[in-house]
This record gives sequence, structure tokens and C-alpha cells, in this order.
Amino acid sequence: MPDSFESIAVLGLGLIGGSIVQALAHGGYRVTGYDPDPIEAAAARGTGYTVAASAAEAVAGADLVVLAMPLPALDGALAAIEKQLAPGTVVTDVGTLKEPVLRAVRSRLPGVRFVGGHPLAGTERSGFLAGHPLLFRDAPWALVLEPDTDLQAWLSLAVLLCDLGAKPVPTTAAEQDAAVARMIGLPHVLAEALALTGLHGGQLGLSLAAGSYTSGSRVARTRPELVATWCDGNPALVGALDDAIATLTACRDTLAEGGSVRTLAEAGYRARMQWEDREFGPVDLPADPERLRQHGRDGGWITAVVEKDGPGLGELRLLGMRPVR
Amino acid sequence: MPDSFESIAVLGLGLIGGSIVQALAHGGYRVTGYDPDPIEAAAARGTGYTVAASAAEAVAGADLVVLAMPLPALDGALAAIEKQLAPGTVVTDVGTLKEPVLRAVRSRLPGVRFVGGHPLAGTERSGFLAGHPLLFRDAPWALVLEPDTDLQAWLSLAVLLCDLGAKPVPTTAAEQDAAVARMIGLPHVLAEALALTGLHGGQLGLSLAAGSYTSGSRVARTRPELVATWCDGNPALVGALDDAIATLTACRDTLAEGGSVRTLAEAGYRARMQWEDREFGPVDLPADPERLRQHGRDGGWITAVVEKDGPGLGELRLLGMRPVR
Repeated sequence: MPDSFESIAVLGLGLIGGSIVQALAHGGYRVTGYDPDPIEAAAARGTGYTVAASAAEAVAGADLVVLAMPLPALDGALAAIEKQLAPGTVVTDVGTLKEPVLRAVRSRLPGVRFVGGHPLAGTERSGFLAGHPLLFRDAPWALVLEPDTDLQAWLSLAVLLCDLGAKPVPTTAAEQDAAVARMIGLPHVLAEALALTGLHGGQLGLSLAAGSYTSGSRVARTRPELVATWCDGNPALVGALDDAIATLTACRDTLAEGGSVRTLAEAGYRARMQWEDREFGPVDLPADPERLRQHGRDGGWITAVVEKDGPGLGELRLLGMRPVR
Repeated sequence: MPDSFESIAVLGLGLIGGSIVQALAHGGYRVTGYDPDPIEAAAARGTGYTVAASAAEAVAGADLVVLAMPLPALDGALAAIEKQLAPGTVVTDVGTLKEPVLRAVRSRLPGVRFVGGHPLAGTERSGFLAGHPLLFRDAPWALVLEPDTDLQAWLSLAVLLCDLGAKPVPTTAAEQDAAVARMIGLPHVLAEALALTGLHGGQLGLSLAAGSYTSGSRVARTRPELVATWCDGNPALVGALDDAIATLTACRDTLAEGGSVRTLAEAGYRARMQWEDREFGPVDLPADPERLRQHGRDGGWITAVVEKDGPGLGELRLLGMRPVR
């Protein structure tokens, strides 16, 4: 079986980092948090969690370090801990985009056993006190398996995530960022454009706004600096926008010629229902990186890592779920 | 005071028509429904409402006729009732777009006292049994006041809508259709495009979909033929799409050049919050069509029609609410 972690450090105690601390503590793991913001640190300490006085103190002796600070603070955090990491320490993160983090870690901590991660969970609130130990229950969690990723570290993290009730999705940094461009970046950009275009229609329109405007512009309430960290520097978002703009332009031209939106509405309806109506079935997988990446590409995730009869890493069996229709 | 209605016919007993029947009956009005679909007719009759055997029978003796059938069925319904309407009968409708209905009624029933209406209410469900007598409580209800609209009929309808708890918004057909292009048509087209563009990203993306995709594509679940009736034939939707596409293209180009979505995200955030944070205050209005239309243009609605000291229509006082910030 892959090693389990004995001592975990979580740097950043906002909604995601705070929820990880709470989930790990409730799962019986030894976990130490740290946040440079004294308010978040006090919130965690005041509710009974262990909080270190510095990032270096938090990671001392840890065999897993979770980077849960905002992306702009990442480089400073890497600099603060690079001398403190024990050999063999596994490092992971929780950022939306995986390629920028991978580049930063490879440049700053070239020898570290790094496995990028991205939990698809959150609420509209922020801060430690908005966190919850069950925030990741049933949440997809992209777990990056590059050709040079340490498979043992990846498997250990997958086991940990399964233990938190999350659904680890094996993928590469580039593939996850391309998927996120369409499923997170694009919906945010469309919501911003809708909020703005609606406002251009004046007060009458604002008074006639119905459920479609309300839900379509909902995520325009997100703090703009967060939206920027989820969108900027992701080349796949340019392609996703090109795709959406082409669809919208075709619809606009059809309407201008007296045609109907019906073709688009039928395609959109089928697409939404295809997503809603997906069904999943169990699958067995070997601990083989390319097979695991293909499993993620096919929409699957890991539910457990179990031992086969024989000993050794090659004899692990991964249980997963994948779409069956 | 404007005349109140003694006998109301509602043609079409789906979600909206059915809810109007229920709301009127619970408000003490005498109301007769009709639906060519025997299932909807039976649902209404079976729950204790009066249902006529034909449209002609339903409108016989009515002083208000509510057209609540789908737009494609409108022309047939107008043909069925045109010989049955008593002189002076007021006719209204509940369609999303007001210009096509206005054209159809002017051509088919040129002498009728027609006042177009559009309640901004609904659920994802359909049919009489999905209706509710309180569906229109606090719902905006566009009420068309053209230069040739009979003011007495408009005021009578406004009083009726206030009695149902709705918020009548005075507007013209063209202005309401322009507002609806941005607040209903555009959000639906964007949701369809998002659902479709998301699907193009493959199964990995569908498995990583988060709240922004879920809410952004929610209304792509709407039946495509309904989306078409809300969008097709509304020239203002072409302009709204041009506006949105220009915003998206500028964002796409910024990203392609290595820039940030932050400017758009800040503008979208401000727009959404400006809508959410609107506050309203009371206002008094005379029964003057241009003043009323301006009130709607300013984002206001009517809450009551009361009598001033003197008698006669000129001495009415309308109470309303309007945005104060």
C-alpha cells in the first residue's frame, strides 16, 4: 500500500485550506496550519486546531505540505519553506490552474515530490470560519499525474483524498487547465458579460430581470481578483472563448436574417441534459500512470486503492467510477 | 376609479394561465378557463375551477379576456373568439414579446381594447397543476401602454394586477421587448452556448464542472421551443448579442495578449451588485400615459390606484415605487 501521511502541514487557512485542516483533523490526521493573516490564524486556533507561528515551523517534520494560499502568495511561500522541507516530503496545492503552479514549483523546488491538486468545491463565502470538514465530500479533486510525477506520492495523496470523501481525478496539468477553461473560466466570463450587457439596457430591464438573468449572472458576484486568478494565464481559455463566440455569432446572424434560435436551443438542451443524465459504473484499474490519465480523460475518478494478493506497488488495484452513458 | 372586471375568461391553462385562474378565483373574481388540451382542462375542473367547453363559450359575457396560450396558438385563438367578444371587452395576454402580439391583435381584432401584458414569473415546471395562486406575488408584470392604448382599460388591469400582488410596470411594446432581449433572451442564448461549449471539452471537463457551470447553464434545461418563442423575431436581441459578443471578444483578445480578465470582472461585479443593491422608494403619479411610461423606463412600478378628492379619471392618483439608488 502507498505510504500514509503522519504529519501534514496546511499553509493558508482560508475557505479551502481551513476546510482541509478541519477535514484532516476530523479524519484523525495530525495536522498543523499556518496563515500570515492573524485573523484566520486566530479563527483556527480559537476553534481548537493547531496553528504554527510561521510557515517554516508548520512544515518542520511534515511529510505532506498542502499549499492553500492564493496564487500571488505562492512564490513567497515556496521561498519560505524550501530550506525546511525534509527529504521525501510530498507537496501538493489546491489552485484552480495547474500549469502555473507546476512551473513555479519546478523552478523553485526542483527536487521536491510535487503533486498538483484542485478540489472542485467552494461556497460564496471565504475565510476559515466559512470552512467545513465535509466540504470535499463527493467533490471532484483533480490530481495531476505528469510523466515525471512520483507515482507513490500520487497514490498516497489519492488515498488521503478518498479518505476525505473526495473524488480524485487523474489528469495532466495541461488537460485539467483546458477543462477548467471551459467549466470555470468561461462560465465566469459569460456571467460578467451578461451582468454588464444587462445593465446597459437600463433600469426598465433591471426591474424586469427574471430567473435566467439571476442565475446566469450569479457568479459575477465573485471577487474580481479571484476570477482573475482562475482565468489569467490559461491559454485554453482563449480557445474556449473562440468556441463560444463562434456559437453566439452564428446565432446572432441567424436571428438577424429572421431565423430561429431553436437549433442552438436544442443543442444546448441536449448538452445540458447529457451532463445531468450521466450515469456511472465501477471499474478496476492498475497503478499505471497512462491508464489512470486515460481514466480521468474518460470522466472517471478513483474511489479506493486496495492491495492485490502479491506485495509491492505493481500489485495495487485502484477502484474507480466512470461514465457508462 | 377605473372599472373593475365582473367576469374574466382565461384562455390557456398551463403554468401561467392556470396560476392566473387560481389567483383570480382566490381573489374572489368570477373566472372561467378554457384549454384545448383535455388534460389541462380536466386538471383545472378536477380541482374545482370553472372550465368552459370552448374558447367561444369561455369568453361569452366576459369583460376581460386573458390570452395565455403559447404564441403559435395565438392566431387561432383570436379567430375563435373575434365574433364572440362583447363591445368594450378588454383583452390582454401574457407573452414574453409584446410587439408580435400587438401586431397580431391589431390586424385580427382592430377595434378591441387590447393591453399587452407580460408577467415575469414562472418555474421550471409546466401545466395547470404546477400553477399556484401566489405565483405573481411581488412579480414584475410589464403592462403595455402605447399611445393608442385605452387608458381606462390599462388602469383597470393595473388595479387587477395589484390585487394579485404583482408589480405592474408601465412600458411600450418596443421598450419591453428591448429590455427582455437583454434580461431573458440573452441569458438563455448564453446558457445554451455555455452548455454546448462545455460539452465540447469532453468527459474530463464534465466531471470537473463546478457551481459556475451549473448555474450558468441552468436555463439550457428550458424546452427549446419555449426559448425560441422568447427569442425569435425580437430585433433587439441582435443588438444585445452584438453588445455581449463585443465584450467577450475584447476579453478574449486581452487574454491572448497575456492580459487579465480583471477589468471585465470588476465591471461585471459592479453591474451585478448595482442590480442586487437597488433600493426603492415611493412615488405619486398622475394618470398620464407619458409620465407612466417614464416611470417604467426609470425602473418603477405601480402599487395602487387611488381616488383623489374630485371625481373623474383625471383625478386618479397612482402610487408607485421606483429605484432611489
